[in-house]
Amino acid sequence: MLHAFLKKGSFQDSVSLMLISRDLSKADDLKRVSIMMGTPSNKDVFRETGMWHDTLDEAGPNDICVVIETEGASDAITDIVRDRMEAALLAMMQGRKSASYPIVHSYNRALRSLPDANITLISIAGMYAHEPALEALERGQHVMLFSDNVSVEKEVQLKTLGRQKKLLVMGPDCGTSVINGAPLAFANRMERGLGSIGIVGASGTGIQELCSQIALQGSGITHAIGLGGRDLSEAVGGLSALTALEMLDADPSTDVIAFVSKPPAERVRAKISEVMQGLRKPVVALFLGKNPTVRQEGNVYFAYTLDEAAQLALDLEKAVKSARHLPKVARQGILGLFSGGTLAAETAMLLGAALGLKADHEHKAGFMLHTDEHAVIDLGDDVYTRGRPHPMIDPSVRTERIDVIDEKTGVLLVDVVLGFGSHADPAGAVADSVKALQAKRSSPLVVIATVTGTEADPQVRSEQIARLEDAGIIVLNSPRQAVMLATLLVKPEACNKPEALLKEAVSPVLVKEPAVINIGLREFADDLQTNDVRCVFYQWAPACGGDERLQALLKLMQ
Amino acid sequence: MLHAFLKKGSFQDSVSLMLISRDLSKADDLKRVSIMMGTPSNKDVFRETGMWHDTLDEAGPNDICVVIETEGASDAITDIVRDRMEAALLAMMQGRKSASYPIVHSYNRALRSLPDANITLISIAGMYAHEPALEALERGQHVMLFSDNVSVEKEVQLKTLGRQKKLLVMGPDCGTSVINGAPLAFANRMERGLGSIGIVGASGTGIQELCSQIALQGSGITHAIGLGGRDLSEAVGGLSALTALEMLDADPSTDVIAFVSKPPAERVRAKISEVMQGLRKPVVALFLGKNPTVRQEGNVYFAYTLDEAAQLALDLEKAVKSARHLPKVARQGILGLFSGGTLAAETAMLLGAALGLKADHEHKAGFMLHTDEHAVIDLGDDVYTRGRPHPMIDPSVRTERIDVIDEKTGVLLVDVVLGFGSHADPAGAVADSVKALQAKRSSPLVVIATVTGTEADPQVRSEQIARLEDAGIIVLNSPRQAVMLATLLVKPEACNKPEALLKEAVSPVLVKEPAVINIGLREFADDLQTNDVRCVFYQWAPACGGDERLQALLKLMQ
Repeated sequence: MLHAFLKKGSFQDSVSLMLISRDLSKADDLKRVSIMMGTPSNKDVFRETGMWHDTLDEAGPNDICVVIETEGASDAITDIVRDRMEAALLAMMQGRKSASYPIVHSYNRALRSLPDANITLISIAGMYAHEPALEALERGQHVMLFSDNVSVEKEVQLKTLGRQKKLLVMGPDCGTSVINGAPLAFANRMERGLGSIGIVGASGTGIQELCSQIALQGSGITHAIGLGGRDLSEAVGGLSALTALEMLDADPSTDVIAFVSKPPAERVRAKISEVMQGLRKPVVALFLGKNPTVRQEGNVYFAYTLDEAAQLALDLEKAVKSARHLPKVARQGILGLFSGGTLAAETAMLLGAALGLKADHEHKAGFMLHTDEHAVIDLGDDVYTRGRPHPMIDPSVRTERIDVIDEKTGVLLVDVVLGFGSHADPAGAVADSVKALQAKRSSPLVVIATVTGTEADPQVRSEQIARLEDAGIIVLNSPRQAVMLATLLVKPEACNKPEALLKEAVSPVLVKEPAVINIGLREFADDLQTNDVRCVFYQWAPACGGDERLQALLKLMQ
Repeated sequence: MLHAFLKKGSFQDSVSLMLISRDLSKADDLKRVSIMMGTPSNKDVFRETGMWHDTLDEAGPNDICVVIETEGASDAITDIVRDRMEAALLAMMQGRKSASYPIVHSYNRALRSLPDANITLISIAGMYAHEPALEALERGQHVMLFSDNVSVEKEVQLKTLGRQKKLLVMGPDCGTSVINGAPLAFANRMERGLGSIGIVGASGTGIQELCSQIALQGSGITHAIGLGGRDLSEAVGGLSALTALEMLDADPSTDVIAFVSKPPAERVRAKISEVMQGLRKPVVALFLGKNPTVRQEGNVYFAYTLDEAAQLALDLEKAVKSARHLPKVARQGILGLFSGGTLAAETAMLLGAALGLKADHEHKAGFMLHTDEHAVIDLGDDVYTRGRPHPMIDPSVRTERIDVIDEKTGVLLVDVVLGFGSHADPAGAVADSVKALQAKRSSPLVVIATVTGTEADPQVRSEQIARLEDAGIIVLNSPRQAVMLATLLVKPEACNKPEALLKEAVSPVLVKEPAVINIGLREFADDLQTNDVRCVFYQWAPACGGDERLQALLKLMQ
């Protein structure tokens, strides 16, 4: 049997009420308690869940509605539950951290008490969320809309305005964002100032899992910009994704952009793709649920799973960081001189994908890749070993070629293969010839090596790496990492930050200290406070007791 | 100008002579020295490299041919080079490690001095290699053919015989193998007894790079079986690949098989694929130069690069190892109960790929995957959050479902999402309900969790992991790893070693102490000695001074 009562004119947020509902439902003397504010959509929920009681007819959006399901019929239960609810509400109030942030009751007051606020975080019921979001945008604020149940039409309206004003509209139904260290709604705590990966995502736990994987490997993020799950739909057209990508591309602290969403609508995919390709920075794109048909297109790397996306972003981050400290060889050629055929083949494949070149399948004269600018040669090819030992045994096959590398080559890629059978000191041979070459060159040459071999090998891996590094050679862990670095180096856009040119484009919200107006769930303000982010809590309740006619009238009068 | 002389009746291996050639060529008084045995194919090389001299007409396969190119015309240079070469040959002999292995001059004597020899390693010139290889196979030996320039026809003949006799034919032109700790030709030194990855490869440096990556991550290999670069061609049909795969599948110490080759011929691919699918063990397949169109088919995982292949193999190795210590839940159902939508979606995608199921794109009632046996549910779906908090806030949405998991479910997959906004102790909620469930179950249930969150999160990642592990829950680092383990557990073939059934199929060469007959390059015997592998060095030279007519006659008389 159902019993019900109202607590008039006492607004509480939905999450708090739901948690109290759950706790009260555990009592032995009743089957279920459902507590919600009397909004139209909540009334629908009461109906749908078989908890409708005619008392609710009286309820407005500012009234707490309590419906109790019991086995028996005694109305005395309502008083018992009322007492329990009041106790729970009181405990909740008392349990709150002492707030150091201001608590206000209007948007104007919020702005007055935090004049440099730049982000408005909204988590009130969806039917009311549009208005404060619009107001925030009009006042030049970036908006995070945690609220769901906002119509697509309203989403498009907000995002179109946002795009015009170069303001982020994160959401609706956006669970996670981190802007310059400020956790907005659901967010993981990342060490600030660590790492340079910027995340954009239409997927809350997708963003969180990327953050988690990145932190696990000792790095961090600059920002994580949530978009809301519908942003890449045909209707919304990726409006926020475009703004977020452009903002991170111009952000001076972001080196790599990681993007996660469900596969976008076809038309949207094309647009997003085009914008990604045009960015200066490397991008990792994960379109969930789809094995990417290509792994790389220009600066965009496609991933299949969240851990793969995180790994790619981490490797690219490392590559960008080392590129920054290396000589500038933009627009120069890449030359790969390999002793191992498979290592040459993999390098040619990856370089081809990165630079949009075709691998050379004829392999004439050991060339696995051959253009006017770039080449990858397998020196173990028959052409080079007719009548002389394999380059793994006799490094001179390669050192002779290193001696004559021309000035147009900016990056040299080599493999050093250790183990039984191989030369006693292949790294030494490469190091000596590279040193001799560098001494006579007028333009810079970056040499990148990978070492195939173990610490137990006769040549000892760590000693061989030391020999290479002593000669100024960069040693990386895999051909993939070597190609990442090489392609970054020869591309003029990446790594070289044309600061002056970019400064204009930098969105202040990414570089200024964040200051947040929080409308809705009080906990979000507590979390901001924990993170030393300045904020103000706007304790929102439906205007005019939720009477829509009165609200409209009030709006006209303003 | 060219000068030449012969040293008759003095066989030396080609690598040694090539290295001496290179060193002598460095002298200031001459342009180039070329030293090779007088085999027909070497004579071709002299011709092709512009080093032909009529003196070579006289040379047979047992004669050292020396051709000298100088600026001037003085014939005195031949005596100078002769002295230098003799000095180099002497130094080479003296420089050898003292051999503890027997040195013999016939295959019969080799077998007599090492009666339990099981591998014959051949590195003599290709034109002579076929005969000892055939003899070795006929005597029940596995053969590693380092030699190149063996015709396809002879390769097919050898491999057909090998397949009939369940013997490996590694090569021709096979640079790398490691059988039960014995490095054959070019090989990296791996710690013995560490790791359980078996490698099969038609790519020498491919195998070496996999070994290197595996060792870098602290694991190791059981065996690395080289095939020779042509094994997966249309003509050869993957004969050795099939034998190698079957052998590693039956090998008790191998848990995971990693396969690397260029993309095979179409007909061969189908056959190899079918055999891989039929194996009991997980396989990682890397067909170099090709982005795999699917990432997984049953037990076969497809990789794109060498480092990706190594990582997959390492993750699978870990999964197999933990599966072995977990309760048997073969043929039971997998149930995923997720609080994070993206984590549920990725899990459904990976499970679908692993079990050959389609993901459920309708997502009715939050089901991302739904078959009679298996299901993945996103408990954050609207269906579950109408009127109650999201499961990241209120774990009861999930714990209620854990309470009623039926006995047909053998594996439960869960995510635990930390961070601001999330429940204060989501791991505790899962742990408590899992403990309660386990107490009342009659059949085993394996619970696998991933934790999304950082050490700095309010819930503290390590503490949450400890809570889960205290409840007997396996905690892994990514949804991908969790799915790997889950699918291994429900597949009856993997992990459970039907020892008795397999014993018959185990190839002795993989479990017995290796003993090698080395024919050709002396260094390979030295390397075996360094690794405490018993061997005998058969100091081969062309029979009858290389006279083919006499050789044929001799053969008839035997």
